[in-house]
Order: sequence, then C-alpha cells, then structure tokens
Amino acid sequence: MQPLPTMRWTDGSLRLLDQRRLPRNEVYIDCRDVDTLAEAIRTLAVRGAPAIGIAAAYGCALAALTTPSNPGFRKEFLRKLSVLEGTRPTAVNLFHCIDRQKVVYDNLGSGEDPAEALLRSAHLMREEDLDASRAMGRFGAELLKPGCSVLTHCNAGGLATAGLGTALAVIYEAWDRGMLKKVYADETRPLLQGSRLTSWELTRAGIPVDVLPDSAAASLLRSGRVDAVIVGSDRVAANGDAANKIGTYPIALAAAAHGVPFYVVAPLSTFDPGTARGEDIAIEQRGRGELAVSGGSVLLPEEAGIWNPAFDVTPASLITALICEKGVISSPDGRSVETMIRGKSDA
Amino acid sequence: MQPLPTMRWTDGSLRLLDQRRLPRNEVYIDCRDVDTLAEAIRTLAVRGAPAIGIAAAYGCALAALTTPSNPGFRKEFLRKLSVLEGTRPTAVNLFHCIDRQKVVYDNLGSGEDPAEALLRSAHLMREEDLDASRAMGRFGAELLKPGCSVLTHCNAGGLATAGLGTALAVIYEAWDRGMLKKVYADETRPLLQGSRLTSWELTRAGIPVDVLPDSAAASLLRSGRVDAVIVGSDRVAANGDAANKIGTYPIALAAAAHGVPFYVVAPLSTFDPGTARGEDIAIEQRGRGELAVSGGSVLLPEEAGIWNPAFDVTPASLITALICEKGVISSPDGRSVETMIRGKSDA
Repeated sequence: MQPLPTMRWTDGSLRLLDQRRLPRNEVYIDCRDVDTLAEAIRTLAVRGAPAIGIAAAYGCALAALTTPSNPGFRKEFLRKLSVLEGTRPTAVNLFHCIDRQKVVYDNLGSGEDPAEALLRSAHLMREEDLDASRAMGRFGAELLKPGCSVLTHCNAGGLATAGLGTALAVIYEAWDRGMLKKVYADETRPLLQGSRLTSWELTRAGIPVDVLPDSAAASLLRSGRVDAVIVGSDRVAANGDAANKIGTYPIALAAAAHGVPFYVVAPLSTFDPGTARGEDIAIEQRGRGELAVSGGSVLLPEEAGIWNPAFDVTPASLITALICEKGVISSPDGRSVETMIRGKSDA
Repeated sequence: MQPLPTMRWTDGSLRLLDQRRLPRNEVYIDCRDVDTLAEAIRTLAVRGAPAIGIAAAYGCALAALTTPSNPGFRKEFLRKLSVLEGTRPTAVNLFHCIDRQKVVYDNLGSGEDPAEALLRSAHLMREEDLDASRAMGRFGAELLKPGCSVLTHCNAGGLATAGLGTALAVIYEAWDRGMLKKVYADETRPLLQGSRLTSWELTRAGIPVDVLPDSAAASLLRSGRVDAVIVGSDRVAANGDAANKIGTYPIALAAAAHGVPFYVVAPLSTFDPGTARGEDIAIEQRGRGELAVSGGSVLLPEEAGIWNPAFDVTPASLITALICEKGVISSPDGRSVETMIRGKSDA
C-alpha cells in the first residue's frame, strides 16, 4: 500500500491534504511559511496526533527557511516555533516533534545549514512513522484469517499519521495480502470521522467499506459478519487499559459478548507508563455545538444539557491483543506491557 | 402529568402537532379531511405506531364526516379508509385501529350517525392509550428509587402515543412523585429522535435532561451516574426478547456489565405471542440517505456502502423487567410472558 498524501514536502513547501474538504473534494494547501501551516493545524486541515507532530517538524524547517540568516536568526526562528506550539495545546506529539527539532538546531555542525538539517530530521520522523505503521500492519495481519471482515471505529488511518495509520495499517496490509473481504466502519458521532475520513481512505484504496451508525455495531457483531475488531488508541495505560474515541468501549463489550477478537493498534509512543490504569486518564468533555447543531439546523432545545466525552477507556480484560511496532501483546496486563516497553528502551 | 398535545379533536378537525418542525417550532396542522391527514402521516408530521393508529381512527371519523350521506356513502367512505391504510404500510397499529373502526361502522344502530359513532370510538381508543400509559407509569415508578437518574433511548414518549408514552410515562410519573433527579437521553442516530423529540418533551415538562451521543452510553453507565435504563419496544417476542430502536441492545449489554437495571416498557398490544424468539423478528434495513447526507452536505463517498438496521433485539436475559399496563414481568421468560398475556385474555 502506498502512503496517503496526508503531507508531502515539495519545492520548499509542505503540501497538506485539506481534511476539512473530504470526502467531497481532494484539495491541497501549500504551506510556504509557518503562519499558513499554523492556521492549517489550528483549523483541522491536518488532524491526528502523529500527523500534527510531523507537520510541525516540517514547520520547523519552514521556520528556518523563511528566516534571514543574520544575527537575529535564533530569536526569530524560536518565535516561529512558538507559533507552531500554540496551535493545538493538547496534542502531545506536537511538542515532542518540535522539541526534537530544537535538539537538532542546538547541535548543528559548524557551517551546517539549519533548514537542511531540520528538513532531514523531519523526513526522518515521517519515515519512522511510516516504518512503525508498516510493522504494526505486518504484526496485525498475522492475527487475521483469510477472507475476514473487520470492524473499525473513528479514523486511525493514514490521514491521522504520516500516511499509513495504525488500525488501518493492519487493514491495508491484510488487503495487500488478499486476506480481507470487507471493512465495516462506524460513522463515529459526533464528528463523523468514520463517515468522512475512514470511508474516504478505504474507498480510495479500493477496499470495500460499509458505514454504520455507532449504535448498530453490537447488532453487526452479533450477526456474525465481523471476524475481528481493529481500533487505534490515544493512550495506553501501564496496565494495558486503552483510551480511544468515544464509542470504542461498547464495541469491546459487544465483541466479548459474541466471541469476536478485539485488537488495539498503537505505536509505543502512545504507551504511557506514567498512567497506572485507565481510570487515571482524564477524559476531555467536548462542547455543546457538536450535539446541538447539524448542518445549520438546531437539534436541541436551549434548556437541554449535553454529556459529550471525547474518549472512553477499554479495560485490558476486553482487549484480545495490543499491537505495536515491536510486536503483539496478547491478553495484555501490567507485566506484559512493561516487558514490551522495556524491550523498546533496551533496543 | 398532562398529556402532550400530540393530537386533539377540535371543531370537526384533527389538530396534529407537526413533529417535523420540533424542537424549533411548535406548530399544528388542522386536518379537516382524509387527504390532509394521510399526507401528515406519510410525511411523519405524526409518528410512532400508537400515535399513527389513533390518528387514523380519527381519520375514519373525518372520512364519514366529509362524505355526503347518499347511496354512494359506503363506497366513498371505504375508499377514504383505504387512503389512510396506504400511508405507512408497516405500522401494524394503523391497520388494527382502522379495522376496529370498520367494525363500529358495520354495527351501527338504525338511525345512528356514522361520524358520531366513529368519533366516539376514536376518543375511546385515545383514552385507552392514555390509561395504559398511566398504568405503565405507575408500575414502572414503583421500581425506581428516590433521587434516581435514568437513561433512555429514542423517543418512547407522548409524541409516539396519544400523549403520555411508554418509557417516558414511567419518567413522567417518577417526576410527578418527586423521585427523579435527571434524565439522560441518547441522541439516537441516524434520525436523532432523542435530540429532537425526547429532549423537547422532557424540557417542556420541566424535567432536566442531558443529551449524549449513543456511543457514550456505555461510559455513562460505567460512571455510576445512571440508576436505571428505561426504554420502549416495537415488538416483544413470546420468550421476552424485545425489539426496539437500533442502539438499545448495546445499552443493555453495558447496563448488565455495570449492574444497572434495564427496564422495557410496552403495552400488551406490543407483545406478539406469534413470534417465538427475538431472532424471528425481521429487522428493516433503512436507506442510504440517513447516513450519507447531513444538513445538505455529503458525508460519504459514492463507493462506500451502508449498513443501517432500524431496530435491534435485546435478549430477555438482559432485561431486568418488562413493564406493561397489567403489571411487571421480572426476569422475563416464555412462561412469565405467557402468564401475563393470558391474564389479559381472561380479563
């Protein structure tokens, strides 16, 4: 599978696929300066924590490229980086990637061009992300059976990463191997990432996909149409509990009730040994507008309140296996997760 | 609790609350002839099987009232009834209520005015429906604890019946008794009956309601905020399995996982002894438009398919109790359901 054109460096500019316009229009934004890129990140033209991080890493190269090499360079360069840092304050990968670029900048060889070094480093981060996706895809595909159909939730795809995704990396690999019959994609209220993004990614790759209301997933699992559930994760706790888009946990309950394996696909950068259990993960509550208004028409009376959490937590006991770029953690628990993470530190 | 103004007979016309305009506008349609009423039923100005049935019963009175009393009366009257029968072919109550009116017409006393007799009969059906709601409300409220909060799904309210509902009849009664703290209402994709109708009904009655995405119900149940789940049903099988709006079954799974009682409220007219088990209930698949388009904007690529069942089946094993107008069936099974239905026939 070729990576999606989520982002690509071309002739001194970062070309971003404008995800706000999908699935209707496939249009691109050429970011030739930091302000254009910052606006694109802020307004969700590019989204998904890994994708934002790598876009920001390219942004650091843009910052150097667009700053005159005079005695004021360092100050102006760092000012532009702080503009990028201010775009999505909750996206951890954004800070990780910018911090990595600051280290590159601080360790430039004498006479080395900052923009060139930062661009090389951004390319490396993009390649690392694609390599991790390919590895997760291979480990995940090994767990599937020929002729299988799978269910996924939200968008853990190429659009959310450098181009190949996490859960969808497994799906792409299974498709390339000729093992995959069909994908079922939850529409994923309230923001409909399943309808708008996952179904676009998959149909673009020629993979058959049926979209369903989130609330129909339990019936689908009961019907026997699905051989495995494959989802991504926003944070994996030390005990193997996994936070993901709201609506993941009820699918795990239904999968367990009907004996369907439930796989969570996430790179080790998503594992957080500092969070002991799922209960310790703070869950962001999102705004009223996502539920109260649709296509300009008001759905809710003013007096009605809302309860709109962005994520839920699936306990490790409901996860058949965690799949990361270093391998598979079957029936995850504190010990097996720690072993996998330690393996990474030792490497 | 006063019944909702779902429908009311006034000065020779049936006044319907136009549910298509809710929650933004509370407007009414005056149906002075069968064609206006048939159009209102067809275009979902009035919806919900019991509500459609009673509206059609009033429609039979309208048919008599608007037909000249000459030798052609019978033929023209029956033609108008067939117009009503053609509006929503799957709504069983529609045919039941029209059949009951045909019996009234066939058994008119000599010199008795058809329109008057049919109107009396329609009023009776409306009163029977309200009485059943009040009885279900009382039986259901007995099962709740003071200060409770409850979760409901879709709209099993006054808007779907003559004015008091099934699941919401229990909620109204608990509110009147001062036992109810708050209602959580699933938005109920794809048609959003929870957002548009249930939250309107409840806020109109002054009852606090929070609306949530369907996919957040499992997290809500896990959070301990909900003391009971209360839903309606479209058909109860002989073994106690209950079909209801898609998304009911995953709530039952999550309620069982977190020890929250799960109540199904349905009049005995919804019980179907001819259907042995839930698996025998045919589930209607709905159209693509409900998932593919929102507020005029396209959500799905053309190549993507859909899977959009209107209902799901909750097995009796997940139902804490069935509540009907004759009483409560705890831990329902074939025997207890049969006993309750036989009690009805004996009465």
